[in-house]
Amino acid sequence: MTKARVEAFSDGVFAIAITLLVLNLAVPDFQRLGSGGLAEGLRVQWPAFAAFGVSFAVIGIIWVNHHAVFAQVQTIDRTLLFLNLLLLAAVVFMPYPTALMSHAFEARRDERLATAIYAATSTTMGIGFDLFWLYLDRHRDLLHEPLRTSGTRSLLLRAGWGTVVYVATIGLAFVNPYACLIVFGALALFYVFDFSATARR
Amino acid sequence: MTKARVEAFSDGVFAIAITLLVLNLAVPDFQRLGSGGLAEGLRVQWPAFAAFGVSFAVIGIIWVNHHAVFAQVQTIDRTLLFLNLLLLAAVVFMPYPTALMSHAFEARRDERLATAIYAATSTTMGIGFDLFWLYLDRHRDLLHEPLRTSGTRSLLLRAGWGTVVYVATIGLAFVNPYACLIVFGALALFYVFDFSATARR
Amino acid sequence: MTKARVEAFSDGVFAIAITLLVLNLAVPDFQRLGSGGLAEGLRVQWPAFAAFGVSFAVIGIIWVNHHAVFAQVQTIDRTLLFLNLLLLAAVVFMPYPTALMSHAFEARRDERLATAIYAATSTTMGIGFDLFWLYLDRHRDLLHEPLRTSGTRSLLLRAGWGTVVYVATIGLAFVNPYACLIVFGALALFYVFDFSATARR
Amino acid sequence: MTKARVEAFSDGVFAIAITLLVLNLAVPDFQRLGSGGLAEGLRVQWPAFAAFGVSFAVIGIIWVNHHAVFAQVQTIDRTLLFLNLLLLAAVVFMPYPTALMSHAFEARRDERLATAIYAATSTTMGIGFDLFWLYLDRHRDLLHEPLRTSGTRSLLLRAGWGTVVYVATIGLAFVNPYACLIVFGALALFYVFDFSATARR
Repeated sequence: MTKARVEAFSDGVFAIAITLLVLNLAVPDFQRLGSGGLAEGLRVQWPAFAAFGVSFAVIGIIWVNHHAVFAQVQTIDRTLLFLNLLLLAAVVFMPYPTALMSHAFEARRDERLATAIYAATSTTMGIGFDLFWLYLDRHRDLLHEPLRTSGTRSLLLRAGWGTVVYVATIGLAFVNPYACLIVFGALALFYVFDFSATARR
Repeated sequence: MTKARVEAFSDGVFAIAITLLVLNLAVPDFQRLGSGGLAEGLRVQWPAFAAFGVSFAVIGIIWVNHHAVFAQVQTIDRTLLFLNLLLLAAVVFMPYPTALMSHAFEARRDERLATAIYAATSTTMGIGFDLFWLYLDRHRDLLHEPLRTSGTRSLLLRAGWGTVVYVATIGLAFVNPYACLIVFGALALFYVFDFSATARR
Repeated sequence: MTKARVEAFSDGVFAIAITLLVLNLAVPDFQRLGSGGLAEGLRVQWPAFAAFGVSFAVIGIIWVNHHAVFAQVQTIDRTLLFLNLLLLAAVVFMPYPTALMSHAFEARRDERLATAIYAATSTTMGIGFDLFWLYLDRHRDLLHEPLRTSGTRSLLLRAGWGTVVYVATIGLAFVNPYACLIVFGALALFYVFDFSATARR
Repeated sequence: MTKARVEAFSDGVFAIAITLLVLNLAVPDFQRLGSGGLAEGLRVQWPAFAAFGVSFAVIGIIWVNHHAVFAQVQTIDRTLLFLNLLLLAAVVFMPYPTALMSHAFEARRDERLATAIYAATSTTMGIGFDLFWLYLDRHRDLLHEPLRTSGTRSLLLRAGWGTVVYVATIGLAFVNPYACLIVFGALALFYVFDFSATARR
């Protein structure tokens, strides 16, 4: 199993999962539009559009991260292969909590639980990356230089901190799901600008 | 992050978004067909077929344009990566305004707003390309020769004119959405023949 | 625009279109199953399963054909690019007439028109290949040797005969749609064995 | 038809089929949630989540197996091409019996038949691999060394035993579908650890 093949398969899964997000955007039923017409019908659906934007950013960022990891890897063994499938399982699952959350906000019911499930899915993806770095740190022969010598401690720490923040959002979801939604958006923006800043250095 | 990888991912997203358009074509409910039968049931759905055709052409043309841009690029930095994700977000979103527009025409209600949203999505894609050229003009080290020396002013101007036309279709949508639909089709045809003509030179 | 890129994009579209066929298979509503239970519920859906099988074979064969064409092509110009998009449009559209046909057979209504639309879509794909060979015959510099010298007349003739058969199925659909369904299956089997036989030579 | 192309197409189909599994997870209707709220609504759906997990593992494992086969193959002929399409047909079909099974468990009706159909689909995939090895054993010129000399008897035997187990699950489905679901999960885990163990050797 070559590294190129695993990356191509993963890219395919990322591309499909990110594209399927659009299926969560339901066209309002034109027969049942009230006096506000389509404009009102779309306004009511704002959580679906917000969730689309956030999840698109999340999957996009995970995809960028995924490549950052694989750029350090020289050889893929079976364990990495299955860790990768585990991570992809969370990515593939992503459209479901996205839909759940947007429906909950639209119905103004159980927003806490729905947002917590979304946060837990994000956390699972974070843990997936942590496991990657943990395993790679113990099997440095799979890495490229210079990480083969130095180890992945700094990368693991950084990924670990991200996971701590994601775990915290699970709790925040039960306190204030609206604040949690804003934190999701802020995290996405943070990662985008963090990456751009890294690029400029 | 190699250029080949970004192109492969983008190709995947384009291929999926263009294929998902078919999900907007609903099979008429055979239990509720009137005396006109299936022929009548399909005739009523004409906006869905027209929208399928136009959106297929639009995504196809955007895909061709995307490759034209990337053929000029030598190196991809993080900013280009996220500009690309922004452009792909508009592509992924495309099936939604397509469905919205076809439902509006079928229900003969709010066609203006639905067509304007479709035009705004097209405009966003146009602006995405403008941002690409603007950024590349200021970071010419990312380009291949001869654009590295000459700059991308002529390409930017051309893309910019296209964007002006797209912005105008947003206004036209509110005046006459049927005329706007015809303009979309004409624009698609124009680009197809423009490209073929370029190819013959 | 390199040939490899166009092939990769086309492969993506084929892979997605062939996979989306499964979305036409609706799970029977368990709340409304009669005394025959699930077995009866599935038996009633036989047209959907037959259509799934035939369309899977059709798209699979078109994919094999597509590669046979591209194996002869050395350079891709803009016209070939748009002929290819035209062919892909028919491939992407395929799940719709598949669903239409299976619903018509299940409802026992308008089977003739639905089958004719399916046959017309197949015919369009056949014409797409004819246009490919016609264009390539007039632009032999785009071909590999030995076709560059000999031309594509024999391949065009063969593709043309296939198209004649497909046109005939449009007529047959209006006479006897059940016979037409059998002919679709027989055509698919013929191509499978024809290719295998070619491979053994 | 190059081997790389067939692998890329197959990878695309695997990536899409595994991602479409998420479409089987329906968001509970918030307007009809009982006093238990969303938590209860999700609890009732447990078969859908279990089926998602098992089918994700099954398609993931089949993908890993697919590459193990193709790593041994040097040249692809038309027969292998169509054997591959046959195998992919079973993979593409997979989301349907997954949905069928989860709906049956949720409705507590006809679980036996639904589980047996799921087991039969898995068996078909197993037979697909058996046919691959059988054909390759008789056409060793298509293989890489050392299998070209030694033949594929040991690999065929191993794949054959797996098929026997899958056939047995069809029978088990009619006896106790819940036990069958557990066996599916156990088989998936077995393959995951079997592969990891192989990797460590």
